[in-house]
Amino acid sequence: MKKAIVLTVIGCLLLSSAFSQDPELRLKEKGITLPTASAPVANYVNAVRVGNLLYLSGKGPKKADGTDITGKVGKELTLEQGYAAAQAVAISHIAVLKAELGDLKKVKRIVKVLGMVNCVEGFTDQPKVINGYSDFMVAIFGDKGKHARSAVGMYALPNNIAVEVEVIVEVE
Amino acid sequence: MKKAIVLTVIGCLLLSSAFSQDPELRLKEKGITLPTASAPVANYVNAVRVGNLLYLSGKGPKKADGTDITGKVGKELTLEQGYAAAQAVAISHIAVLKAELGDLKKVKRIVKVLGMVNCVEGFTDQPKVINGYSDFMVAIFGDKGKHARSAVGMYALPNNIAVEVEVIVEVE
Amino acid sequence: MKKAIVLTVIGCLLLSSAFSQDPELRLKEKGITLPTASAPVANYVNAVRVGNLLYLSGKGPKKADGTDITGKVGKELTLEQGYAAAQAVAISHIAVLKAELGDLKKVKRIVKVLGMVNCVEGFTDQPKVINGYSDFMVAIFGDKGKHARSAVGMYALPNNIAVEVEVIVEVE
Repeated sequence: MKKAIVLTVIGCLLLSSAFSQDPELRLKEKGITLPTASAPVANYVNAVRVGNLLYLSGKGPKKADGTDITGKVGKELTLEQGYAAAQAVAISHIAVLKAELGDLKKVKRIVKVLGMVNCVEGFTDQPKVINGYSDFMVAIFGDKGKHARSAVGMYALPNNIAVEVEVIVEVE
Repeated sequence: MKKAIVLTVIGCLLLSSAFSQDPELRLKEKGITLPTASAPVANYVNAVRVGNLLYLSGKGPKKADGTDITGKVGKELTLEQGYAAAQAVAISHIAVLKAELGDLKKVKRIVKVLGMVNCVEGFTDQPKVINGYSDFMVAIFGDKGKHARSAVGMYALPNNIAVEVEVIVEVE
Repeated sequence: MKKAIVLTVIGCLLLSSAFSQDPELRLKEKGITLPTASAPVANYVNAVRVGNLLYLSGKGPKKADGTDITGKVGKELTLEQGYAAAQAVAISHIAVLKAELGDLKKVKRIVKVLGMVNCVEGFTDQPKVINGYSDFMVAIFGDKGKHARSAVGMYALPNNIAVEVEVIVEVE
């Protein structure tokens, strides 16, 4: 009887550990449904794989209705809205990863992020904006989500999107 | 006799297919002669190879006389002129590839493009400018030319060039 | 006797050649003590390794007291000060490499540099600024320091740092 309880406890622990290591479950826990990966707006593709590296195209942030989150941080958007926009870009990229890999458990490491913030000239908190992207990747992929990164301020972005991020991902 | 004709037709088809897969022939068909790869303006090199990846330095657009195409898109240059400038950068990069590889058939995949447009603040059509680069790569390399991409707007570029692009290429 | 002298001369030559190939000795010769690699200011890491490639996060220039070198080149900073700032970023990156690799002799090649200069709109000498980074890498790593590069002008950088550079390094 005692043994059965112990085994059940161990089983639950293993299960919960497995659960927390499944990025798709983490998305579900956060109530996030991945959108369809948006099609590139020109003669290029969402991702190219070379060996075990996946190079993802730059993406911008989308609202729930599929339209772009636009505007400059420090003018039309606050820092908090910029952070939320960067998180939305992370969701766009995860949607691309899901479409490319089938299963997000195949993500081995988020390797390198270039985070570009559409901002006013005096704005100097690009890292706090791109944290919206980085924090979300770590929330979903755990230690595998920890990446090298640059965060910089841009003069102009396509369709005046608030943030554009490009990323390199190691896959299994 | 019938068999000979069939074989000849198949032969021609194979030949034409082989032809269309030769990037150097495609360049010839377009009447484009590659310039000599321009020398870096400082203490760096045009390309570094690691394994089967070739990292190419950022290049700008050159006129036929070898001088830079300069100016900001949305001010000195129209969208169409920006597109043509981006195409000129593609030609510069293909010249580097030719110098590095000897034969352009060794290009396995154009992997990742970062397209930077020198533009005015209100300009939001960076993807349409960088299409000049992407469309040309696909015209010359076919499906191997399809890449992951970011297209962004820059505040200032070296010598006020209209466009700067850097690219990663997978080679055989 | 003659033989002994010849052998000594050869020994000295070999030694000096070995010395000049040791990046840490070159740093010492220049009187440079590496700082502790600065901790990332957010939810990311200084470097991610995939195979034999090390992706380093974007870094800015630090003064001897550990504070940032700030300001726009062409406004608060001259070209020469920008060059010095870019060199300071190289030192920051070498400090990261030392922390990651233990021994700088493990650097096989500085592969690819993206040099971003915080500048005024009319400024067009970004390559001359980023030379501060490139020249230093070549001074320390010799031919292994020669890299592919882009040098561009930014609208705004974190904490108004003068220069931000990201780099990919091949390691043994």
